[in-house]
Amino acid sequence: MPETMRAIRKLAPGPGAQLQQIPIPAVGPRDVLVQVMATSVCGTDYHIYAWDPWAAGRVKPPLTVGHEMAGEVVAVGADVTACKVGDYVSAETHIVCNNCPRCHVGEYHLCERTRILGVDTNGCFAEYVAVPEQNIWINDKDIPWDLQSIQEPLGNAVHTAMAGELTAKSVLVTGCGPIGIMSVPVAKMAGAEVVMAMDVNEYRLGLARELGADLLINPTKEDPVEVVRKQTRGYGVDVVLEMSGNAGAIRQSLKAARNGARVSLLGLPSKPLEIDLAADVIMRGLVLQGITGRKMWQTWYQVRSLYRAGLAERLKPLITHRLPLEQVGTAMELMASAECGKAVLMPGLKA
Amino acid sequence: MPETMRAIRKLAPGPGAQLQQIPIPAVGPRDVLVQVMATSVCGTDYHIYAWDPWAAGRVKPPLTVGHEMAGEVVAVGADVTACKVGDYVSAETHIVCNNCPRCHVGEYHLCERTRILGVDTNGCFAEYVAVPEQNIWINDKDIPWDLQSIQEPLGNAVHTAMAGELTAKSVLVTGCGPIGIMSVPVAKMAGAEVVMAMDVNEYRLGLARELGADLLINPTKEDPVEVVRKQTRGYGVDVVLEMSGNAGAIRQSLKAARNGARVSLLGLPSKPLEIDLAADVIMRGLVLQGITGRKMWQTWYQVRSLYRAGLAERLKPLITHRLPLEQVGTAMELMASAECGKAVLMPGLKA
Amino acid sequence: MPETMRAIRKLAPGPGAQLQQIPIPAVGPRDVLVQVMATSVCGTDYHIYAWDPWAAGRVKPPLTVGHEMAGEVVAVGADVTACKVGDYVSAETHIVCNNCPRCHVGEYHLCERTRILGVDTNGCFAEYVAVPEQNIWINDKDIPWDLQSIQEPLGNAVHTAMAGELTAKSVLVTGCGPIGIMSVPVAKMAGAEVVMAMDVNEYRLGLARELGADLLINPTKEDPVEVVRKQTRGYGVDVVLEMSGNAGAIRQSLKAARNGARVSLLGLPSKPLEIDLAADVIMRGLVLQGITGRKMWQTWYQVRSLYRAGLAERLKPLITHRLPLEQVGTAMELMASAECGKAVLMPGLKA
Amino acid sequence: MPETMRAIRKLAPGPGAQLQQIPIPAVGPRDVLVQVMATSVCGTDYHIYAWDPWAAGRVKPPLTVGHEMAGEVVAVGADVTACKVGDYVSAETHIVCNNCPRCHVGEYHLCERTRILGVDTNGCFAEYVAVPEQNIWINDKDIPWDLQSIQEPLGNAVHTAMAGELTAKSVLVTGCGPIGIMSVPVAKMAGAEVVMAMDVNEYRLGLARELGADLLINPTKEDPVEVVRKQTRGYGVDVVLEMSGNAGAIRQSLKAARNGARVSLLGLPSKPLEIDLAADVIMRGLVLQGITGRKMWQTWYQVRSLYRAGLAERLKPLITHRLPLEQVGTAMELMASAECGKAVLMPGLKA
Repeated sequence: MPETMRAIRKLAPGPGAQLQQIPIPAVGPRDVLVQVMATSVCGTDYHIYAWDPWAAGRVKPPLTVGHEMAGEVVAVGADVTACKVGDYVSAETHIVCNNCPRCHVGEYHLCERTRILGVDTNGCFAEYVAVPEQNIWINDKDIPWDLQSIQEPLGNAVHTAMAGELTAKSVLVTGCGPIGIMSVPVAKMAGAEVVMAMDVNEYRLGLARELGADLLINPTKEDPVEVVRKQTRGYGVDVVLEMSGNAGAIRQSLKAARNGARVSLLGLPSKPLEIDLAADVIMRGLVLQGITGRKMWQTWYQVRSLYRAGLAERLKPLITHRLPLEQVGTAMELMASAECGKAVLMPGLKA
Repeated sequence: MPETMRAIRKLAPGPGAQLQQIPIPAVGPRDVLVQVMATSVCGTDYHIYAWDPWAAGRVKPPLTVGHEMAGEVVAVGADVTACKVGDYVSAETHIVCNNCPRCHVGEYHLCERTRILGVDTNGCFAEYVAVPEQNIWINDKDIPWDLQSIQEPLGNAVHTAMAGELTAKSVLVTGCGPIGIMSVPVAKMAGAEVVMAMDVNEYRLGLARELGADLLINPTKEDPVEVVRKQTRGYGVDVVLEMSGNAGAIRQSLKAARNGARVSLLGLPSKPLEIDLAADVIMRGLVLQGITGRKMWQTWYQVRSLYRAGLAERLKPLITHRLPLEQVGTAMELMASAECGKAVLMPGLKA
Repeated sequence: MPETMRAIRKLAPGPGAQLQQIPIPAVGPRDVLVQVMATSVCGTDYHIYAWDPWAAGRVKPPLTVGHEMAGEVVAVGADVTACKVGDYVSAETHIVCNNCPRCHVGEYHLCERTRILGVDTNGCFAEYVAVPEQNIWINDKDIPWDLQSIQEPLGNAVHTAMAGELTAKSVLVTGCGPIGIMSVPVAKMAGAEVVMAMDVNEYRLGLARELGADLLINPTKEDPVEVVRKQTRGYGVDVVLEMSGNAGAIRQSLKAARNGARVSLLGLPSKPLEIDLAADVIMRGLVLQGITGRKMWQTWYQVRSLYRAGLAERLKPLITHRLPLEQVGTAMELMASAECGKAVLMPGLKA
Repeated sequence: MPETMRAIRKLAPGPGAQLQQIPIPAVGPRDVLVQVMATSVCGTDYHIYAWDPWAAGRVKPPLTVGHEMAGEVVAVGADVTACKVGDYVSAETHIVCNNCPRCHVGEYHLCERTRILGVDTNGCFAEYVAVPEQNIWINDKDIPWDLQSIQEPLGNAVHTAMAGELTAKSVLVTGCGPIGIMSVPVAKMAGAEVVMAMDVNEYRLGLARELGADLLINPTKEDPVEVVRKQTRGYGVDVVLEMSGNAGAIRQSLKAARNGARVSLLGLPSKPLEIDLAADVIMRGLVLQGITGRKMWQTWYQVRSLYRAGLAERLKPLITHRLPLEQVGTAMELMASAECGKAVLMPGLKA
């Protein structure tokens, strides 16, 4: 094993990032060292790269960026029992406190003191990453590395979609970023009667279609509330999966929901927004669920089962770009353009 | 039986109402004629009396006002099987369509075509009222008439409070109008660890205390988020019952809720309000439930069981005024002043 | 419209039934007269035909047999509002009392005073049948008549399967009679990771395979507990759908279930059976659900949505025989042989 | 701190146990050493003492007996973060594997590889006990030691009772051993409309009455099904908490349950029993829940909250005997006689 590795580093406050040769991370008694085979790029990575106000307020350089990944275990700490050298693994990226009431009752995803891999600790845009044993998930070995890597954001999609019933329901997905698109085949596999996908970006609507959406809605071209109501005999949709964080989309989704509908909110609005709670939520008996992270480990088990049942195959078109670590800049430009599905960095690829 | 009766009538658009002598209502084949023994006054009645914008947009005079009531069945239509002359009854005030998907699956309280007794049809501020058989609920005869009458708003409180677990939970009630106050003993009887009640009105906080609140919060005097957090070891409250419809209270209640809390919303804000969905709902995994009406008939069964288990006795201090029909104006002034619990008109009382 | 019709009649206690020409049923003010286009044969019909002890204790001849059906509305009573002449309809066969607590809270399928079409009232093995308005379900017109007819037993399968989560779960179906077989594609469409089907009859296992079962288990040839445990890495299956009523299968299914599994019981054992509650249920935290009938109308809505999502197409191989009314005897022989899927009588077919 | 301690030891297969002076247990890096202040006696302890077939098949002497306890932390291992010296603690007695799917999803009480304190490892009928950090629960310091100690069996009662709704429900408790009796005030505090308690032992029925039962049923004197049906207007009870493990009581409880009732089973039958699944469970839509252990840590949080809300006070009459360690034989005789509530050994009491 080498002593150093290539890693994408945020060295100081401000935009950009740099490829550096740095020491391979030390491995504590309950840590696992993973050789990274694939590490997919998330909007959060882009926020850190571009150094937006959220990143400036939270991230403390120097830091190795990246949190979505898959790789092979190459070393384990002395007390590790959950996995062994040679396992193919991914990481749950929320590092929880284990000591608050939410952790005590197994609602780790709601821990108040969560730290995030690649945001608050060194991440996985690198050849190796050290992960606490408690955050390790062992993958089926027959899944391609890129599809292993995207299980973390897929877990967000599954957590959101499966926060209530889907079978025999009508479903509206608002926002076709990668997580929104992922939720389309999840809802289809769960037996939704119809899945409608909404976005302003025609490229991403096309991907949603490719992954199984029955009906596409571009709110710049038609009134989404009208389209959804027409599709649902005037009553509105049973389930909304809100993946955009866009204020207008959120308000439209409430109006497109039937009385008593479930509205699961994952997309993060960038600022407070106005909602007509009386008319759109209370008098119509809606249920709004804030969704964050992935349930440990229920969501990961669900992802594994869905992969086995065919989801892995269905998601392949979503991975539109595979790039060497050196081309992280290209990956970030793709994110900015939104003309991509999921971009995955493969440290083993030649630059 | 007489041919005419006294009734409180809204005769034309504009404030006020008038006592009139009018014919006793006709009884259709599936209707029930009830001699009204007690009819309690609701905020909705006050809105109609005062002729606020909501009332002006919805109510079509002439109309007999009033919807909360209890009385004795004095006649039934030819096809009625659900009750008989001599029964003591109250009315579910939501008259549903029976023909939409929500009605078909038993979620009548979410019917899109609901009409309301005393708002869209002639009501019960009168000596007699005709009610569709489907809306009749038979009461235990040993409950005083005034406590029989208030079961409809109590049903709102029970529906809100029991929309999730209460036993062994910490509960915050925001807004101590009559329904908010009613929810205090409901939560206590259901085994809440602690019930906190919040209002700006000291009189009503006093009533909440009398009905069992463990902790009173006046947000004009202290920071409710701080008080609640302190009471809950910093984590926030398990359950919010939002009964105020006040924008500030709603926002404070979200911040006072623990990660993953249930926030049940019954109070109707008078206009859209700004919410920090990302920080206060999504990232913290809150669940917001819009609550409307009462479940037919689950909620009424729950009310009956709670009455039998002691709730009727606990609620007695809430009924602060009993007035003859003629003093409807006094009742409305009491509503406007907020220096009352529940006011009940008793048609049998001498003016 | 003619005045008389052909009907399959049980005229007296004892085995057999007779084709008779009898008057078309009278239509009360809340009844619907349906011209029967397809009426499928159920095990219950066979019990009545063969006059087993259950039938002898319950059925009071003379009676027109049959309860699963689809047809066209040809007349409606004066007070009917739920459907109109020309609608294509099926019937919920449980005629409930509307006046008990279960009915009051919308749990009609649990009514204690349920009467059953074709068992306690004249049924639909006939050219026409009168059905209470409350029991009418309007079908999509593009569904073939035979697939419309089988929605009633399919509703049993859907009620059982959807009494808990299926998505991303491992599922064991014990008993591959028609309802058991139907539950296979339901579980598959709902995103089960794997569906195992168990029966002693190879013909019916073959049908289960054709409808999507991933793994077939013949307990006369292999140990089902071992097979299921092996398939589930030793832990046992997440969900059991018990469709056999066979004592041995029930006991095996409990042992094949993982700790905390859901075991939904629809198959009716013919007599009491011995269960090791301590070892097989209590210490392992199983949940056993008794399932009866179909939820009104949630289950029917689910069936409709699943049909629209592709279930109608998937079920086609299950309908192995279409026969004229005259060949009811042949249908009953098929039932006895178990060498069939679903047999459907079509009154319009030439004998 | 001394080097040795008194402990109640099972030294060899066969009835009885002996007080020995043995070394204080060693404390591993993740263990906690507790000075035992109170340790209550459970039926399991009696089975081991009496050396019944279950004990003979499971327990491997020599062993320090006992598992219910409360005490003060006097030492912690090097890696312990969950508690500190001076904390008042109790122990969750199920020591789980942390590595199976049930553990992974937070359903620790369903772990297949559970070991039990005082059964599979040295227990707490001693002056000191070493407990894995993961099994430590920190108590409120104002709770008396004996009431701290009984939280483990109380957790069984709470887990059983709160496995579904209690508020506004009718409840039948079958079996008034200590856990059955404990479930009475739990159901009352949760707002049950009525709590009926059934046992053949008049002493224990008296304790159930003292702890809040509304109605006592002695099945040797009256027909429990008839009594329950009469109390529930003929429909049967909403919730059964089966605490007896007695075959007859289990069968009666099914017949006493209303259609759709919840039947939560905690009592362990000593052998398989015959159940009429068709008539008593399936056709009536009952739900049978096997209950084992306590949810970690939801149940313990619920116990804590209920104690704070008044349950600690209500349970005081249940603790009928407080004895020094030396009088373990007396405690066991009390268990055998059933003429006791809960017996608690207090190592600090003078013999």
